Amino acid sequence: MPRYLLTIEYDGGPFVGWQKQDNGLSVQTVMERAADALEEGRHEVYGAGRTDSGVHALAMTAHVDFAKNWPADVVRDALNHHLRPHPVSVLSARAVKDDTHARFSAVKRGYVYRIIDRRAPLALDAGKAWQVRVRLDADAMNIAAQSLVGTHDFTTFRDAQCQAESPVKSIDAIQVERRGEAIELKVEAISFLHRQIRSITGSLVEVGRGRWSVEDFRDALEAADRTRCGPVAPPDGLYLAFVDYPPEALANP
Amino acid sequence: MPRYLLTIEYDGGPFVGWQKQDNGLSVQTVMERAADALEEGRHEVYGAGRTDSGVHALAMTAHVDFAKNWPADVVRDALNHHLRPHPVSVLSARAVKDDTHARFSAVKRGYVYRIIDRRAPLALDAGKAWQVRVRLDADAMNIAAQSLVGTHDFTTFRDAQCQAESPVKSIDAIQVERRGEAIELKVEAISFLHRQIRSITGSLVEVGRGRWSVEDFRDALEAADRTRCGPVAPPDGLYLAFVDYPPEALANP
Repeated sequence: MPRYLLTIEYDGGPFVGWQKQDNGLSVQTVMERAADALEEGRHEVYGAGRTDSGVHALAMTAHVDFAKNWPADVVRDALNHHLRPHPVSVLSARAVKDDTHARFSAVKRGYVYRIIDRRAPLALDAGKAWQVRVRLDADAMNIAAQSLVGTHDFTTFRDAQCQAESPVKSIDAIQVERRGEAIELKVEAISFLHRQIRSITGSLVEVGRGRWSVEDFRDALEAADRTRCGPVAPPDGLYLAFVDYPPEALANP
Repeated sequence: MPRYLLTIEYDGGPFVGWQKQDNGLSVQTVMERAADALEEGRHEVYGAGRTDSGVHALAMTAHVDFAKNWPADVVRDALNHHLRPHPVSVLSARAVKDDTHARFSAVKRGYVYRIIDRRAPLALDAGKAWQVRVRLDADAMNIAAQSLVGTHDFTTFRDAQCQAESPVKSIDAIQVERRGEAIELKVEAISFLHRQIRSITGSLVEVGRGRWSVEDFRDALEAADRTRCGPVAPPDGLYLAFVDYPPEALANP
């Protein structure tokens, strides 16, 4: 069966997250309904990962198998037609080999976390960034963040419900930078633990506020102790920014 | 009575526009209700201009008089408290002299128009940009736009309902620039005609699509004929970006 790799943008606000769940509408569910509307039968749409309720995607990837050999652009346009009025948009569709898997073939994932540090509430960016009411020191946050690069036991920055076998992960790169009124955190890794980025971000904001020193942050990481994590950042500011694949996974079928 | 100059951000989506109207909720109305909640009595909030239904503001300005001499930060925070849950936020409040007028003291206004030119619908930027489904030539749009700089009869780019006495206006600067997937048009003038920017933007998009040449755009301006205007751009992408005042208008009372 022809397989398609999709790149998907969504506003996570109205959803319980990417993954199908009993307690509300997921992005995966509306994607599968759109696929079922495009072609008779039941379709499963496999995402590159799970995003929590309220977390957004600039470019989630997912794969889906159809019975018929549809042109990739038809898949994109027809899915978008059937996705309306949900805030989910298929940016691109590409025919791939049937052993390309959105999750298992991925070699890198990148996230962006947006913070707006100002006293006034967010009108235009409501639900799309984390408002922190005091000015943050982005440079101090960036210095602290560099201690995360490489392979570490991330127990401190891992949700208690995380189902990964090991708390050891590798972060390839992380950067905290002020862009006007916003602070952007960008982080790249092969994969992440549950709520790892929101836990890291919340703790870095403690550094940015001046409540923690850069050393306090390093100590919290090294302690490998969940009780040492700062307040977990809300989902509003988190965006899955990209998922990378090796050339062979993207090759024509 | 102490006068305050306010800088206000809002999402224009749920409103009939800035100005009070009979047919729905305006930003001015929710501002006045917030002022009435802050201090007993009826308050009028005068904006620097009118924005149409669906048009956003990064920084509208408005003035309001209170009976009591409130600290400016209290005005900002209390108005924000009473504005909830509307997507309207007072970024700053400043005590000014009682002859400072949000509209008549303003010496320059700047707007930004955001276009996203891609085939896939907007999920994250729905209502916040104009989606044009074909790739636009931003450089050609910028070249055409330069013909607007200076003083011209803008009849071509003026709504039929416009109540200004004269169609002659001066544009100080205009720039069209690609920023990744978005095209941003920035324009500055002392004041604008009704729907002038949306009329200009819609016509520049005709140039960007390749339907009009740069010369066609210049000819349309010079014709001073409303029927020569391109399709008027939707309100979604338009943002009032700033209103400038001379130092004496911002001086302490």
